[in-house]
Amino acid sequence: MDIKEQMAQIAAAAKKTSGVVARLGSSPKNAVLRKIADALEANTVLLISENNRDLQHSRATGIAGAMLERLTMTKASIHTMAAGVREVANLPDPVGEVGRMWRRPNGLLVGKMRIPLGVIAIIYEARPNVTVDAAALCFKAGNAVILRGGSEAINSNMAMGKIIGSVLEEEGIPADSIQVITTTDRQAIYELLQLEEYIDLVIPRGGEALIRAVVAQSKIPVIKHYKGVCHIYVDEDCDLSMALSIVMNAKTQRVGVCNALETLLVHRNIAAEFFALLAPPMRDAGVVIRGCSKTSEFIADAQMATEADWYEEYLALILAVRVVESIDEAIAHIEKYGSLHTEAIITNSYQQAQKFLHEVNSSTVVVNASTRFSDGFELGLGAEIGISTSKLHAFGPMGLEELTTSKFIIYGNGQVRK
Amino acid sequence: MDIKEQMAQIAAAAKKTSGVVARLGSSPKNAVLRKIADALEANTVLLISENNRDLQHSRATGIAGAMLERLTMTKASIHTMAAGVREVANLPDPVGEVGRMWRRPNGLLVGKMRIPLGVIAIIYEARPNVTVDAAALCFKAGNAVILRGGSEAINSNMAMGKIIGSVLEEEGIPADSIQVITTTDRQAIYELLQLEEYIDLVIPRGGEALIRAVVAQSKIPVIKHYKGVCHIYVDEDCDLSMALSIVMNAKTQRVGVCNALETLLVHRNIAAEFFALLAPPMRDAGVVIRGCSKTSEFIADAQMATEADWYEEYLALILAVRVVESIDEAIAHIEKYGSLHTEAIITNSYQQAQKFLHEVNSSTVVVNASTRFSDGFELGLGAEIGISTSKLHAFGPMGLEELTTSKFIIYGNGQVRK
Repeated sequence: MDIKEQMAQIAAAAKKTSGVVARLGSSPKNAVLRKIADALEANTVLLISENNRDLQHSRATGIAGAMLERLTMTKASIHTMAAGVREVANLPDPVGEVGRMWRRPNGLLVGKMRIPLGVIAIIYEARPNVTVDAAALCFKAGNAVILRGGSEAINSNMAMGKIIGSVLEEEGIPADSIQVITTTDRQAIYELLQLEEYIDLVIPRGGEALIRAVVAQSKIPVIKHYKGVCHIYVDEDCDLSMALSIVMNAKTQRVGVCNALETLLVHRNIAAEFFALLAPPMRDAGVVIRGCSKTSEFIADAQMATEADWYEEYLALILAVRVVESIDEAIAHIEKYGSLHTEAIITNSYQQAQKFLHEVNSSTVVVNASTRFSDGFELGLGAEIGISTSKLHAFGPMGLEELTTSKFIIYGNGQVRK
Repeated sequence: MDIKEQMAQIAAAAKKTSGVVARLGSSPKNAVLRKIADALEANTVLLISENNRDLQHSRATGIAGAMLERLTMTKASIHTMAAGVREVANLPDPVGEVGRMWRRPNGLLVGKMRIPLGVIAIIYEARPNVTVDAAALCFKAGNAVILRGGSEAINSNMAMGKIIGSVLEEEGIPADSIQVITTTDRQAIYELLQLEEYIDLVIPRGGEALIRAVVAQSKIPVIKHYKGVCHIYVDEDCDLSMALSIVMNAKTQRVGVCNALETLLVHRNIAAEFFALLAPPMRDAGVVIRGCSKTSEFIADAQMATEADWYEEYLALILAVRVVESIDEAIAHIEKYGSLHTEAIITNSYQQAQKFLHEVNSSTVVVNASTRFSDGFELGLGAEIGISTSKLHAFGPMGLEELTTSKFIIYGNGQVRK
């Protein structure tokens, strides 16, 4: 059987089983999840040994340190993964939820009920924990899921897939509900992405190159997130020590993440005073400042920013800084250079706070707090399957609810249309 | 300038103006809409004369009667169109709505605020009223819109585009907010569908061929609706006279629409009695029955259905009929042959009603009422831009809310991430 047929068979099986998963009650779903968590922990030795095969192979092919680190499974990381699955089991089930119903003049009672999307494919890179995290979230939301991880983690992923499959079978649930692709052939991704008749949604998780490749090839809707060029605007009327603590946190608390600060916009009227506060701790933290020409008037050792810097997602100890004349200039800068991810304003002005909140249409807009809160857990979604910077279906951090859709339900008593 | 450049220019202008439209308050938007309604009525003579040019051209090229009818504008149809725009002006504005906010343990106040999608392209066929209907709905929801109608209606559409453009200019709103494509070159559609950097959503409105062509070509998310193969299941425990009235209404009240009944499923235990009631009025209404082998035991003049009939959207006085042994067989039939549009059950059983509502995951599921209620106006959405049978973003009839997305907003007081 060639790759195309193999993928069609996998996707058709997922579609077929999706009706069964969709109708499972919360209790059986949660029971499966808890057993998966137990089984992962019980198979720690096996998982670490399979993961070692991946690590050896990766070392042999000269894969770099950060990648190796992401690939490594330990007793602790397996425990964390299992704990995550138990947390998903404890979350409220979105399926079947009806927010409100309304009565029509003819007596019909109308509402919208949350239902699963159907079949979700996750395409991801080296991190093996995505296999379990994504499987748990998709399954909890009543979907069948197809997981295609990176070839570096193939043995780890297959081992986890087998453990999950055994639990499903023991619980009398079709094993096709959660399928791990066992071929490392890249062609498999292309073939999966053509199967719009079986797969309802594709979520790529990984670097921009992976995501762009998936979008370019897919006939299926893709929820995507290219990059996070997050901004903080420090308004002229603000608490400078609050601004300092938020800017330091957003830039340095964790640099390699999409909700970290990349460009700082500072109102001219407080630039001198704020930069005097900011420059020393930034220097201490090893942050290189790339500033506009006005910035360099205040920060002597600032590098000169080029036009390209305003578009840059550094994911590193580098901060682009621009002095602006007004909030309007700040908003215009964000509109031009931003990535629709997360932007914050630091202000004491009620008017400026409301203006920023209304006029900036990024997926998360923050007043007086760190951009680092743009995260499914921090926002109270209970989980996060990813962050969408495209506007359709979901925008911003996505939790369980974003893995569902809704149908109209109508209770009548004989109504016909006139 | 070639078509590709032309379309890029139009889409870039729409993108540029979309920020302006997004920030307009409800009052200026409603004022514009009311002036558009007035201007359309004031230009009735001009519109009818431009429409006549389209009609003459279409007659000359031998276009069929039903198409000509859809193309024709009259004083009455222009009034109806204007009245529709005034109704849209009267609807609540979804933009800026925050359903609820929640407090996080660290004191952050988090919510989701509705915002416009950005730029929407509508690709449609002969009906010139779509130009105005779609423009009004997209604009009200704060979006810039690009309208590409059928070449048969080009003069009518251009005339309406000019009238709308004049009103926008008078009101000081960029005319690029609502743009009508003035070339009839089919290449224009292809070029538009590549411009994912400018256009956020494409909604095709028309026959299945148009929709499939748009989906095949588009790099932009498409909300689509191929067909409506709607089912009614008449349960063994039901009010037969209610079932009769609902089935007659769903099949015959308007046959050419997507929410009309196409396949009737009848429980074996009441088949004899129900068919005795149903056959005479169906015969009187000119409806041809295509039944399974059991159906023909009860309805002597029924034609024999083939496998293909169960997939068919007749949009005509033909009804496919199947006798089933149980509600499970009915649900399995709908799952296999249905189009995810609208399905109804007629029952007196609380258990069967709830089972059907939960297990059938079409976009609208109805108990004891006609499938014909699957419609934005009838469901109380106030308007309808289309019906989606794909699950992402919107599923079922789409009103103003489905022309928006939402962003997270966070009110903090200095919080940083630990």
